[in-house]
Amino acid sequence: MAVAVELLHTASLVHDDTVDKAPLRRGRETINGVWGADVALLLGDYLFASAAEMVCSTGNVEVIRLFSRTLRDLADGELREIHRPFDWAQSEDRYWQRVEKKTSSLFATSAVSGAILGNAPPTAVAAIRAFGLALGTAFQVIDDILDFEGDETEVGKPVGNDLRQGVLTLPTMLYLREHAGEGRGVDALERLRSSGAQGEEDDSAVAAAVAEIRASGAIRDSYEVAADYATRARVALDRIGDGSNPVWRSLSEILDFVVARDR
Amino acid sequence: MAVAVELLHTASLVHDDTVDKAPLRRGRETINGVWGADVALLLGDYLFASAAEMVCSTGNVEVIRLFSRTLRDLADGELREIHRPFDWAQSEDRYWQRVEKKTSSLFATSAVSGAILGNAPPTAVAAIRAFGLALGTAFQVIDDILDFEGDETEVGKPVGNDLRQGVLTLPTMLYLREHAGEGRGVDALERLRSSGAQGEEDDSAVAAAVAEIRASGAIRDSYEVAADYATRARVALDRIGDGSNPVWRSLSEILDFVVARDR
Repeated sequence: MAVAVELLHTASLVHDDTVDKAPLRRGRETINGVWGADVALLLGDYLFASAAEMVCSTGNVEVIRLFSRTLRDLADGELREIHRPFDWAQSEDRYWQRVEKKTSSLFATSAVSGAILGNAPPTAVAAIRAFGLALGTAFQVIDDILDFEGDETEVGKPVGNDLRQGVLTLPTMLYLREHAGEGRGVDALERLRSSGAQGEEDDSAVAAAVAEIRASGAIRDSYEVAADYATRARVALDRIGDGSNPVWRSLSEILDFVVARDR
Repeated sequence: MAVAVELLHTASLVHDDTVDKAPLRRGRETINGVWGADVALLLGDYLFASAAEMVCSTGNVEVIRLFSRTLRDLADGELREIHRPFDWAQSEDRYWQRVEKKTSSLFATSAVSGAILGNAPPTAVAAIRAFGLALGTAFQVIDDILDFEGDETEVGKPVGNDLRQGVLTLPTMLYLREHAGEGRGVDALERLRSSGAQGEEDDSAVAAAVAEIRASGAIRDSYEVAADYATRARVALDRIGDGSNPVWRSLSEILDFVVARDR
């Protein structure tokens, strides 16, 4: 058995209660927390390669190429996110480019691959691609909101995480647009920028910024943006079928779930 | 431009002389040392994906599948290397499996892909695969020797690195076979095992083990093993051509270089 598979099986069994604040994702300890960074990195590579092998088993070069391009987009999107942190003044375009690369592209490719392999006509492929892009964007916007709104035990990772890491997301962007240049939240964001979240008082700066952004209209406005993308996804979905088709119903349920989820 | 490309271009220009002991590979600072672990990880993913895209551009599903399987083998081989460190008693089989996965598979796939894409007959594909496997194995054995023998400034990374990280390689394995259960090197290896190279005296234990292994016959014996693999590579190469072919001459020169290299 590959060591990777052995480690993945073991990982779910290992739980060391003595470790405080092990990094969490979806409420579970990360491989990074349990096994360390080297193993996490290599397991990631292993899973990448295994996914690529599965894609190869389709024998469809178009789908395989789409998969590779999407992996590249994901890495590029994540790099854009950690590159130049605390740049609260970056353009909204940059935010939306990042979202498309790091999230929407994955949803679109997942949706489109099935359509291509099922020999769907080009109009259906275009519609399912539009569905995936809009669904992924709605998902990411909700994710960004949950970093402000969520209950830490529900979301499975600490609230205010994006701000702490200097990542500008939609609620912060809309808040800054509302409060250009003034307000307690703006001060808190400025404090984080100048310290690079390395200072001792940054926990209180993160908490202050989160509280101000939650109290503003930015969260409600962000939900509206998510709802707008969900509507676009719904329109695209309606172009390729209806509730008489069980696959269509599954996609429709995924869309409902993405918008309604609280973690 | 993708942020990844921008970072890779910049990386070669950045050199901060005030940073002591930045991690080195091939005598140059690593991306990890210059940009940090997060960026290094994502740049790795980006390069993986870009390589996959290039492979996809061949349009040959067999080659693409070989590429994916090889990536998986590389990750598995590296995981085997860091899994259960300081296990000096592990079998020689485990060492050779690791070498095949983490190194020889890459050489074999690189060689075979060209042959497949060039529509070489199956016997030639088999011969070039045998060439790649043996070349890769010789390369890895020399690499393992250089971790004992090399000049730090030539090799580009600190000598004794494998031992410090608890990685068993051929020279150590042959030394332990020679000195089963006794000798100063065995004591030093035992000290490293019991401390997990976390103790303060481990620099001296690494130095002692390196010195003993260099003074033993293990290095000479390891060179013999490398030479044996080089011979196998030569035999395989001779089955598919001769010096009248410029491609064959290039492969032959690579083989000569791999065995003679001192870094």
